Amino acid sequence: MKTLSLLKKRFIKEVAVASLFLVSGTAMAFDLDTGYAPTELIIPNAFELLSVDVSKSGSDATLVLRHTAMISNAWFDAVAPYHPTQVGVFSKITQRRTETGNREKNISVIYAAYRVLSSLAPHRQAQWDGMLLNLGLDPTDDNMNQDNPIGIGNIAGMGVVKNRIQDGMNQLGDAGGVKYNRKPYRDYTGYKPVNTFQKLKDAGRWQPAEGTNGFGKFTVQQFATPQMGITKAYSFKKADSFNIPAPWKSNPNNYNAYKAQVDEVLNISANLTDEQKLIAELFDYKLRSLGFSEIFAAKKFQLPYIKAVQMAFLSNMSEFDTAIAVWHQKIKYDAVRPWSAISYVYGDRKVTAWGGPGKGTVNDIPGKQWTSYLPVADHAEYPSGSAAFCAAHSLVLSRFLNTDELGWTVDYKAGSSTYEPGFTPRHNTQLQFTTWSDLREKCGLSRLYAGVHFRDSIDAGYSIGDRVGEKAYNFLQKHINGNVASLSE
Amino acid sequence: MKTLSLLKKRFIKEVAVASLFLVSGTAMAFDLDTGYAPTELIIPNAFELLSVDVSKSGSDATLVLRHTAMISNAWFDAVAPYHPTQVGVFSKITQRRTETGNREKNISVIYAAYRVLSSLAPHRQAQWDGMLLNLGLDPTDDNMNQDNPIGIGNIAGMGVVKNRIQDGMNQLGDAGGVKYNRKPYRDYTGYKPVNTFQKLKDAGRWQPAEGTNGFGKFTVQQFATPQMGITKAYSFKKADSFNIPAPWKSNPNNYNAYKAQVDEVLNISANLTDEQKLIAELFDYKLRSLGFSEIFAAKKFQLPYIKAVQMAFLSNMSEFDTAIAVWHQKIKYDAVRPWSAISYVYGDRKVTAWGGPGKGTVNDIPGKQWTSYLPVADHAEYPSGSAAFCAAHSLVLSRFLNTDELGWTVDYKAGSSTYEPGFTPRHNTQLQFTTWSDLREKCGLSRLYAGVHFRDSIDAGYSIGDRVGEKAYNFLQKHINGNVASLSE
Repeated sequence: MKTLSLLKKRFIKEVAVASLFLVSGTAMAFDLDTGYAPTELIIPNAFELLSVDVSKSGSDATLVLRHTAMISNAWFDAVAPYHPTQVGVFSKITQRRTETGNREKNISVIYAAYRVLSSLAPHRQAQWDGMLLNLGLDPTDDNMNQDNPIGIGNIAGMGVVKNRIQDGMNQLGDAGGVKYNRKPYRDYTGYKPVNTFQKLKDAGRWQPAEGTNGFGKFTVQQFATPQMGITKAYSFKKADSFNIPAPWKSNPNNYNAYKAQVDEVLNISANLTDEQKLIAELFDYKLRSLGFSEIFAAKKFQLPYIKAVQMAFLSNMSEFDTAIAVWHQKIKYDAVRPWSAISYVYGDRKVTAWGGPGKGTVNDIPGKQWTSYLPVADHAEYPSGSAAFCAAHSLVLSRFLNTDELGWTVDYKAGSSTYEPGFTPRHNTQLQFTTWSDLREKCGLSRLYAGVHFRDSIDAGYSIGDRVGEKAYNFLQKHINGNVASLSE
Repeated sequence: MKTLSLLKKRFIKEVAVASLFLVSGTAMAFDLDTGYAPTELIIPNAFELLSVDVSKSGSDATLVLRHTAMISNAWFDAVAPYHPTQVGVFSKITQRRTETGNREKNISVIYAAYRVLSSLAPHRQAQWDGMLLNLGLDPTDDNMNQDNPIGIGNIAGMGVVKNRIQDGMNQLGDAGGVKYNRKPYRDYTGYKPVNTFQKLKDAGRWQPAEGTNGFGKFTVQQFATPQMGITKAYSFKKADSFNIPAPWKSNPNNYNAYKAQVDEVLNISANLTDEQKLIAELFDYKLRSLGFSEIFAAKKFQLPYIKAVQMAFLSNMSEFDTAIAVWHQKIKYDAVRPWSAISYVYGDRKVTAWGGPGKGTVNDIPGKQWTSYLPVADHAEYPSGSAAFCAAHSLVLSRFLNTDELGWTVDYKAGSSTYEPGFTPRHNTQLQFTTWSDLREKCGLSRLYAGVHFRDSIDAGYSIGDRVGEKAYNFLQKHINGNVASLSE
């Protein structure tokens, strides 16, 4: 059973990891003069919002990335005036400030993040207020003057809020003129699956999966944020320009190819290693994999304040934009997930595969009882979002750092798996990512290990991520160089 | 937004209420010689299982009632040998014991409950073990001898487990020969809604509603435990014998009547009082309303040990059986809920109604934006389960106690509402239930206040609850009197 309690345990573990990794001591001990607010104050404060409210599984990429892109955007715009040429994405502050320490930059960054967090998560207003009050900062100071760090932060943060609140994601739930009982981020495109959970009418198309709390409560998936594909990107105008080949092997009329890609997933499922399971878990949890690898690199290469902010925004913005391009294609092709295709091909016939948590490989599992190692996400299969995010992530970070070198490791104690607790891994295990290319490749393969994608989706994801990453990198450089004809409003 | 955090806050509140109400001090302080294990040890221990794992909203009646019926069944069977004539439902212990104190009865009750809880919730095995270990009891003592309290408890508990594990509810998820990736309590009847969340094809039939975590994750309901209607009852053999009139007003071909019942719900919605909102919340949360009122009565009338156990089982068993009869009719009629019917009748046209949390009554809400005060449950409308449960509850308890007198009160501090926190009630409010009849009536009406039922459903619910209550009461008396020809196996 993939129960809440597993996710709870994981959350506690991740908070512990985040605390150790991101901050020394508590948020209260943050030092305005010497600290680095983005990862020592803001992320630890936003962690519960992201990991409990927004995405318990850590896999709801579109929603998590919109949050992290907006938060890091606020940082980027807030530090712009402290850089010789940098301009904000949504705020053009003409006055420049010179500061050798961190205090003013921190104050600007904190107020900018405060404005964005207050807009994204007003239900946690008391927490955001407390974050400021603990540092002796006044949450009611809403001055918008360029001549002081608080004003700069407010200008930066409010610029992001103002320009993003109607970006197409329906943050307020008011799309289509909804006035009452608004539901934030609700679909307004009218997406309807052709298949139901009970019936696969078209074996080439996406089928919503069943979910359960493990105790008798069942629900059916809805396609996650179909409007992501028409949401405004940072670095490009046309989301439909990132073409990929049609997923022809997912058309059951091409039965040999259809069955071959089903069999590849089954074969991987039957031969899953402990390391593969951990890789699958790591890359499913976007904050841990994408977020922490970037933060690790910023520390490793000892980036100065502003460069670290630039890289954080680059990473999150490139992935957010990638999600937009990916979702456009996901909606377009609406392709079938492995679990449906395996059930379609094998039905009651027995296959050899992973038999569920703690069961290992079994040779008598009916095709329709097969399940993927990770819970399958609530959107169509093609292309792989994760592969695309990791491609963009690796590309922009290696370019920004001017090296492929990474050297990131993630340690797992025996039995510390989220989905096979007590079973996996059998021995303490360290995952190693020597280079960004290495991370990109393992991240892509992780979706095959997880049993949630076919192979062609990985390549298609890479293709989109590479192209968007290029645009995102150029977008960032222009803003760092102040080389923007007009601000994108 | 009806977010998890609201439910979390409510949970904390309810735990506090439960602690104050049920136990003095902590579970560790339970005294085997003088205490009353059912409500001072078992319920506090099972509270988190029921309120967090099984039903966060407290409204998942079929699942909650199966748990409470089985747990109280274990108590009933465990105390049988301590009574001159009583026989267990699933265990016939011939030896009789006399005891003036509580120690032996407590030990039998605790082991019986331990066996049932270990079967129902093996993921909390450590907690159940700890419950025994804290009292110096040995969880590994699995003797099944009639000559000692532990053996009696084990016989009673294992009898319930053995006879209930394949009762039709699919506790193991193995119905239909599922061997791998079993999902406990999954439907195996093949129920399919005729409507989708997106499209009301038949305005007389049930439509699954959309759910959201409030942060962009959306799901669609599945009909809760359709197999409940074919699950084995305690007190009757044929679930289809509790006929009720067809819900003809829910047939859109009878448009005047259809619209009239829609308008009644809207009218109630437009005139909701603070007290009505609290009544709606109270009766939605089954443990708090049904469970606590019974425990209150047991204390008020100072029932001795065995009589208190008898009443606890009677209450929970009668409601469990009622749920079976009700579900049989819910599946049969598959009737439309008010939210769908209001959207069908009014669509984009504006109505006057409650405008959502904190909004009060508004006069410009499009019919399709209307929502019920409480989240609508995940099963068909007709008849009302709550009305039926409360009818059975009131009937069996007033008969058992030989009085309609109750005198139960529930206090709400200003702003302590779960669904309108900070707004409702405006002043400290006390709900009063002077008699069981009073509780029955308010409980039935609560479903109209909640906006989740039409009026005819309440009467139909009463009708079923009254009839099942009668049977359940007789079933209990036979077992108390030892007047059972053969044990139901």
